[in-house]
Amino acid sequence: MEQILGPSVPSGRALWRPLGVQDVIITGGPLARWQRINHEASIPLGLEQMERSGALPNLRRAAGEGEGPFQGYRFQDSDLYKQLEAVAWEHARAPEPRYAEFIEQAAAVLERAQRPDGYLNSHYQVVKPGKIYTELEYSHEMYCAGHLFQAAVAAARAGIGDGLLAVARRFADHLVEVFLTGGDDGIDGHAEVETALVELYRLTGERAYLELAGKLIDNRGKGLIADTGLGKLYAQDHLPVREAATPVGHAVRQLYLEAGVVDVYLETGDESLLDCSLRRWEDMVATKTYITGGHGSRHDGESFGERYELPPDRAYNESCAAIASIHWNWRLLLATGHGRHADLIERTLYNAFAASTSADGLRFFYVNPLQRRDDLAEDAYLGRRREWFACACCPPNIMRLVASLGGYVATTTGAGLHLHQYVPGTVGAGGARLRIETGYPWDDLVRIVVEEAPDGEWKLALRVPAWSAATLVDGRPVRPAEDGYFSIRRRWTRGETVELRLDLTPRLTYPHRRIDAVRGCAAIERGPLVYCFEQADQPGGVAVDDLALNPAAPLRVVPRDDLEGVGRTVLIETDAAAVVQPRDGLPYTTTPQATGTPVTATAIPYFQWDNRDGGAMRVWVHLA
Amino acid sequence: MEQILGPSVPSGRALWRPLGVQDVIITGGPLARWQRINHEASIPLGLEQMERSGALPNLRRAAGEGEGPFQGYRFQDSDLYKQLEAVAWEHARAPEPRYAEFIEQAAAVLERAQRPDGYLNSHYQVVKPGKIYTELEYSHEMYCAGHLFQAAVAAARAGIGDGLLAVARRFADHLVEVFLTGGDDGIDGHAEVETALVELYRLTGERAYLELAGKLIDNRGKGLIADTGLGKLYAQDHLPVREAATPVGHAVRQLYLEAGVVDVYLETGDESLLDCSLRRWEDMVATKTYITGGHGSRHDGESFGERYELPPDRAYNESCAAIASIHWNWRLLLATGHGRHADLIERTLYNAFAASTSADGLRFFYVNPLQRRDDLAEDAYLGRRREWFACACCPPNIMRLVASLGGYVATTTGAGLHLHQYVPGTVGAGGARLRIETGYPWDDLVRIVVEEAPDGEWKLALRVPAWSAATLVDGRPVRPAEDGYFSIRRRWTRGETVELRLDLTPRLTYPHRRIDAVRGCAAIERGPLVYCFEQADQPGGVAVDDLALNPAAPLRVVPRDDLEGVGRTVLIETDAAAVVQPRDGLPYTTTPQATGTPVTATAIPYFQWDNRDGGAMRVWVHLA
Repeated sequence: MEQILGPSVPSGRALWRPLGVQDVIITGGPLARWQRINHEASIPLGLEQMERSGALPNLRRAAGEGEGPFQGYRFQDSDLYKQLEAVAWEHARAPEPRYAEFIEQAAAVLERAQRPDGYLNSHYQVVKPGKIYTELEYSHEMYCAGHLFQAAVAAARAGIGDGLLAVARRFADHLVEVFLTGGDDGIDGHAEVETALVELYRLTGERAYLELAGKLIDNRGKGLIADTGLGKLYAQDHLPVREAATPVGHAVRQLYLEAGVVDVYLETGDESLLDCSLRRWEDMVATKTYITGGHGSRHDGESFGERYELPPDRAYNESCAAIASIHWNWRLLLATGHGRHADLIERTLYNAFAASTSADGLRFFYVNPLQRRDDLAEDAYLGRRREWFACACCPPNIMRLVASLGGYVATTTGAGLHLHQYVPGTVGAGGARLRIETGYPWDDLVRIVVEEAPDGEWKLALRVPAWSAATLVDGRPVRPAEDGYFSIRRRWTRGETVELRLDLTPRLTYPHRRIDAVRGCAAIERGPLVYCFEQADQPGGVAVDDLALNPAAPLRVVPRDDLEGVGRTVLIETDAAAVVQPRDGLPYTTTPQATGTPVTATAIPYFQWDNRDGGAMRVWVHLA
Repeated sequence: MEQILGPSVPSGRALWRPLGVQDVIITGGPLARWQRINHEASIPLGLEQMERSGALPNLRRAAGEGEGPFQGYRFQDSDLYKQLEAVAWEHARAPEPRYAEFIEQAAAVLERAQRPDGYLNSHYQVVKPGKIYTELEYSHEMYCAGHLFQAAVAAARAGIGDGLLAVARRFADHLVEVFLTGGDDGIDGHAEVETALVELYRLTGERAYLELAGKLIDNRGKGLIADTGLGKLYAQDHLPVREAATPVGHAVRQLYLEAGVVDVYLETGDESLLDCSLRRWEDMVATKTYITGGHGSRHDGESFGERYELPPDRAYNESCAAIASIHWNWRLLLATGHGRHADLIERTLYNAFAASTSADGLRFFYVNPLQRRDDLAEDAYLGRRREWFACACCPPNIMRLVASLGGYVATTTGAGLHLHQYVPGTVGAGGARLRIETGYPWDDLVRIVVEEAPDGEWKLALRVPAWSAATLVDGRPVRPAEDGYFSIRRRWTRGETVELRLDLTPRLTYPHRRIDAVRGCAAIERGPLVYCFEQADQPGGVAVDDLALNPAAPLRVVPRDDLEGVGRTVLIETDAAAVVQPRDGLPYTTTPQATGTPVTATAIPYFQWDNRDGGAMRVWVHLA
């Protein structure tokens, strides 16, 4: 099977071929900034944490080398595996000897820790050797294995870490022996290994890995694991995968599971898998997706809520859920060729995902709400980003996605290229090389310069985002085809250009009326960016919580080259009102609300919030 | 100390003297109905469950008599204690030999289970004898003890259960030896024993019980117990009691704690305790109280949320929190003489509390939301009332309050009587006896007939609820004094009457604009009753979730003698709109909502919901 150096899904059934991390060079804009701080700040922090958080010491314990008690959660190994994957992609993008060294050294520890039969999990080996594979509902053993496989695939594609791949294969073979040929039935309470097994199959050609992934998906909903007390929905074990109509339970589990479901479809052609996954996708997008692209409405169980249950303040929107959604949508994009999946990737990437990391790359959100009140109890958890977490699933997950972002920008067909995300830089594919010049998403113009012209007729397909009300190509209004792309098929000459102009007019967006939690409100968007109102940007004394927007007022664009703490941004100002309602006894009255006084309200892109004072924030603001 | 047969707070510092359960006979209206079904259905079910749920079998195990494993939670004993208290009050109200027998038999089991040193807890004696008092953060040992003390006090006041009191005193003495004179410092993670110790002091005169209650309150906020992982706010251990400004954490814990704080003030006169409790009360009422009187905005930690975080769908509003709030407000009423506490008791009683039980008394809510969607996932927990719970704190708690409701109706002073709640029946106090004739809360007239006239000048004080916009006494408009009562002081003659007419005009109520979750909505109230819209009452095909109210439309009162499944009620009809917004892709658009078609919408009192089909329900409905 052809190998592509990227977080890719090369498959006969995919409509398009992904590009490798080395085929797309991102040279500017927010994505290049994220990759720079990932390289300079986040990854070094993550590498340090692999010792401090216990991830590597635990594995040394399992190898019989370390001292002291097991540290952290039973899935602590997975932090290391995600970190290894991040380092592997980063090595492919911007090689450094320390990356290869880290992978090599970690692989050596893993090799020594791994049991002769291939099993590897420091928690179970150190703490509960008698319980291996007996607590699948919460053991995370296959979940950890999955992250190991993904790290090994990334390292192998990047040409480093043969040792890691050997460890991964031995563990995968052990899983096959127990759960496929051995006849044990089970699933992991936390889906993840399914997509990883398919990727390992793509790398190695070992069909048993694909078969095991398929079996694990078929096993879900049969009650093979115990209920952890959080209910069968929590682990998507309430119904067979092909029968479940809507995403439920722990959001990250559901979304990783979906990536696996589409992956198995892509390799086996089982249409029933694609069908059920698309059915849930449509329900999720229409009723359970935040405007930021985030998923997970409840802290309770870190889970999806009911349809239209989308509270802004108690939104969970785990950073890992944003990543898992991008993985799933990428696979759906390759499977269906429909730009709506690239649209959702863009929305998620620039909002739910990007907000997870501070401007300096050193602090992270686990939970990404759409509102923070100005009136927090004196003693409440303030909900600011943190350097690390006891359960640190998010930071290394963020790092592996940022390092591999180039893989999500474009795809090729035999004679053509689809541009899914607009970033300045170069994209090379099959004899063609394009240079892309753009200040997007701050500016509306995307200029595509043909640096190397392909032979013969060749199609350039440009995604036209659903939000772009008026789109120009080379100065002429265009409408995308039903798949969301505008295509130009012709012979190309070196040096010629295509100019795409997207509609970045700021827009006031209203929620569906059944989203109770934000009725009577609007949000501001511009291009792919969702905006929010932060206390730091409001004129003296006006509380964000007192703002009321005027739907008729113009939205004024205010570019800022270097806003303190934030960097480059585009603010939006509008004429609004400040409505102060007194606090007196029960907050229920028989007279409607007070009127307000005029103020100017200023909004900042949501992904740049919480880089200043930690004050109030709102995406959805009352309408006057 | 004088003993009153009621859930009382007799204290030198209380402004008023409570009445006993036998002094107030409730003969009609919803409260009499609740007492009847409590007697006929709920208590018999509860008595059965004492065997089935493991509560009594666990204690037999502790006595060395039973077989089989410990059943249920570590606080399983408390279910029995609350059930015993319910039975004791019910015996005082409507004696039956089986009640005295049950108490006697249970007391005998407890006596045999109790250790010679007085300690008693079946979980720790059976499962973890080595861990006694070492896991106070979650052990519930003192919490269980508190419920034992309250049961013993109730039984003693009802003249039964000497054996129970002896058991309780031995355990209380053991607590005193360990935590007061013995010098051990600690608190129970779940407050409750504080108010119970004060009641036991009131019954026995043993000052050490009061002192221990005071010490446990002083100990809170000092970090004497471990964090269970839910944070220090969860158990109100984040700050000393006198410093905490707002209710936080697990709602039932906070509210039981407050009852203890006011109880200790009432007996010691420590004003700093009353002050801090009132400060939190005011903050809670203004920012953390549901319109139903419910408390607890989060499933996560069963806890209070931030100020104005009051989601209707994910409201927790545990039934036990409503009970605890009534306990606290009763003590504040006696301490301050301000009718606002009786107002909140009424709101809580008729809404948050009353909704907890089905019309037949056989099913209970643990969680009392203000909204249930019509569009629940096929596999979601439907949230209907249940016969019992693994954690069954609520049902017996409900039973003990219903049995003792008479104790919350009126209080006396030397020469006078305050009527706090309006119920048909008789109230006797100090040579006076009043007969009250009323169809309240369905009807607006309360007729008070003097059956026995008191000697000399005597004051009759009538609570004028804050919601009653136009109140008449004997046909003349009156306004209450600042304390919320309208008083008549004069000489009284047998047979004379006073007629109070409250304003039961239905009203449209708006939320404070900072309650994000219900902005742009209104609720309907009539008298003390909050209304809701249930699917069962709406004309064919119109979904509750599509309703939009017209604030200018009249609210029509529709009395129903016997609505199927519900019984007597008063419905409210209004002209509204049905607004159907299509589902198509992301639920965010740049065009505002659709308009609707005219429909008649019908509301039912919230406390009577979920007695029909289990469909959608809303207290707060969009405004057109």
